[in-house]
Amino acid sequence: MTGYLLSGSFDKPLLSKKRFIEQIGEIGLIEKISKKFLVDKQIVPVGAGEDDCAVIDVDKAKGGHKYLVATTDTVQESTHFPAGISPFQIGWTSVAVNLSDIAAMGGHPFAFIVAMGIPAHTETAFVADVVEGIEKCASAYNTAVVGGDITKSKELSLTGTCLGFADKTVRRAGAKVGDLVCVTGSLGNAALGMKLIKKEIEAPKSVEEAAKMALFQPMPRVKEGIMLAYSGLVTSMIDISDGLALSLAELKKSSGVGFEIDEDKVPVLSEEIRSTGVFDRSMLGLRELAFFFGGDYELLFTVDASENEELLKMLKRKVKMSVIGKVVSAEEGIYFKTDEGKKEMMEIKGYRHF
Amino acid sequence: MTGYLLSGSFDKPLLSKKRFIEQIGEIGLIEKISKKFLVDKQIVPVGAGEDDCAVIDVDKAKGGHKYLVATTDTVQESTHFPAGISPFQIGWTSVAVNLSDIAAMGGHPFAFIVAMGIPAHTETAFVADVVEGIEKCASAYNTAVVGGDITKSKELSLTGTCLGFADKTVRRAGAKVGDLVCVTGSLGNAALGMKLIKKEIEAPKSVEEAAKMALFQPMPRVKEGIMLAYSGLVTSMIDISDGLALSLAELKKSSGVGFEIDEDKVPVLSEEIRSTGVFDRSMLGLRELAFFFGGDYELLFTVDASENEELLKMLKRKVKMSVIGKVVSAEEGIYFKTDEGKKEMMEIKGYRHF
Repeated sequence: MTGYLLSGSFDKPLLSKKRFIEQIGEIGLIEKISKKFLVDKQIVPVGAGEDDCAVIDVDKAKGGHKYLVATTDTVQESTHFPAGISPFQIGWTSVAVNLSDIAAMGGHPFAFIVAMGIPAHTETAFVADVVEGIEKCASAYNTAVVGGDITKSKELSLTGTCLGFADKTVRRAGAKVGDLVCVTGSLGNAALGMKLIKKEIEAPKSVEEAAKMALFQPMPRVKEGIMLAYSGLVTSMIDISDGLALSLAELKKSSGVGFEIDEDKVPVLSEEIRSTGVFDRSMLGLRELAFFFGGDYELLFTVDASENEELLKMLKRKVKMSVIGKVVSAEEGIYFKTDEGKKEMMEIKGYRHF
Repeated sequence: MTGYLLSGSFDKPLLSKKRFIEQIGEIGLIEKISKKFLVDKQIVPVGAGEDDCAVIDVDKAKGGHKYLVATTDTVQESTHFPAGISPFQIGWTSVAVNLSDIAAMGGHPFAFIVAMGIPAHTETAFVADVVEGIEKCASAYNTAVVGGDITKSKELSLTGTCLGFADKTVRRAGAKVGDLVCVTGSLGNAALGMKLIKKEIEAPKSVEEAAKMALFQPMPRVKEGIMLAYSGLVTSMIDISDGLALSLAELKKSSGVGFEIDEDKVPVLSEEIRSTGVFDRSMLGLRELAFFFGGDYELLFTVDASENEELLKMLKRKVKMSVIGKVVSAEEGIYFKTDEGKKEMMEIKGYRHF
């Protein structure tokens, strides 16, 4: 499953400037876009724009894995594009959000299919940048763009479908009382980016850049998801796209457990941002950033720590992760453990479409 | 690959009437919808709404086939929904257009994933009907709905991704000079439906019903596509979703050939409609219906007829098809053979998004 993606050439702009896609025509557009998506013909004999379907040699693609994993996710103008996001980053995000779902099952992504809804008055250069973002994110994660569709629509909308393979799929169900609760990376960066864009808070340029990057161009935890799945220690997993609180609530429902969270251990904001010293943990609103916003695309997972201390240490060396609490019974619910050893129930809110 | 789809129960409405989906909430909506999509857990251990991804046991699903085929297609309010289409038929169509692409490669469809963009003010009963249409079309073609996504959007939009398996995939490339040009079923029914809706022409009630049904609830030629692929006679294939002229042009480009079409042999309008005697072949506009509109979802294919007459006869007994012309050299282009034996070049036009 590795090494079959040939990188496309981006030396020249895909389409000339100052034209609108309605002037190119659908077939011309498909041809120009498809050329950007190169695949290894041994594994994907028919790729994007070549025929009615993409064709994948299953045995070669799956590389011995047992399961095909598949997910779909839409990003669109009216809901998902924060002010200031570039067309490249829009394309990138449409892939990243799907890769994050593959990561959350511990899957190896291998193919991406994209349906683009594009308003007729869109500039071709804009579409070219979106396409480059799609290609760059997919190839960064060794995923081939194998097919797609273009429709005229009222608002820009990108629906991606990502296919992957896995042997062990880590489910949302599986957490047991006593397991450790963990997250990868750090949380709240994307939320901070959004607050900075909305001018709700202020920060130095370097912080602003880092936070916006987290918001505009998320890095799904694909490698981490695979390592966590293969460790054999992880009992449940989900991605945190809609905020930590909602993700905990989803795990609770699927696993039938509760969670005790040690707020001080939750990694709020990246080291890069924290090292500036602008924010400290006592600041009001940091909890909000990590728990009740979304867009971080980290993984939330539970670990069976019993008799596995050495393995857990090894895993911690491989995966940037933090233990933020423990699994308790469903009756106890989801709560913060306070310094005084009391419970403070967690409000369950975050990003929802409806 | 057969028999793994359990049918859902549609005895009761999915969601109660007179509510809008924004009142249910995203999680409630996903739960209610997911319940409609039942799958065989032996083959699809994780289905719609259960986790971050659908999980499919590849070896069990592919049933010995070599290739995974995948396609995506969007239907949406501003572009694809003719006046009078029901929500059930909208859901149906979103599956059918994707199945038609699988059919055009000769694939066996097996799984469908749907990303729904829904305006917040949509009535829940409407969404329930859309979902029922999706389920009914998928199950009619032995396809399991394994996953999906819901997004709030400005207009109703359904992006489907269909996965299938195949041994022999029939490509658009492959037609050779001397091959026969054929189509399944009959053409122009959906176009007639559109003209009736727009009151451009008039017809008796029975014709109107049949034509509208072709337009609103297309029946993709999945079984036919599989039989054609397995016959070994078919050298190229494509579906006719955008009209016969554009589909011929696509085959021409991919195969590097031209086409001589005998207009009198093109099966315009279904027997059901023709038997009413309302339309006869001399009527102006019939050519237009069959060649320059879309929405019929029949298959256009070429057949290597040399030394295969007996096999071709057998195929004709199995698949409702018409021989409409022959493959000529690319230099000759695409033309109608007139009664006087002259060429009349075919105008290449049809449905295009841009």
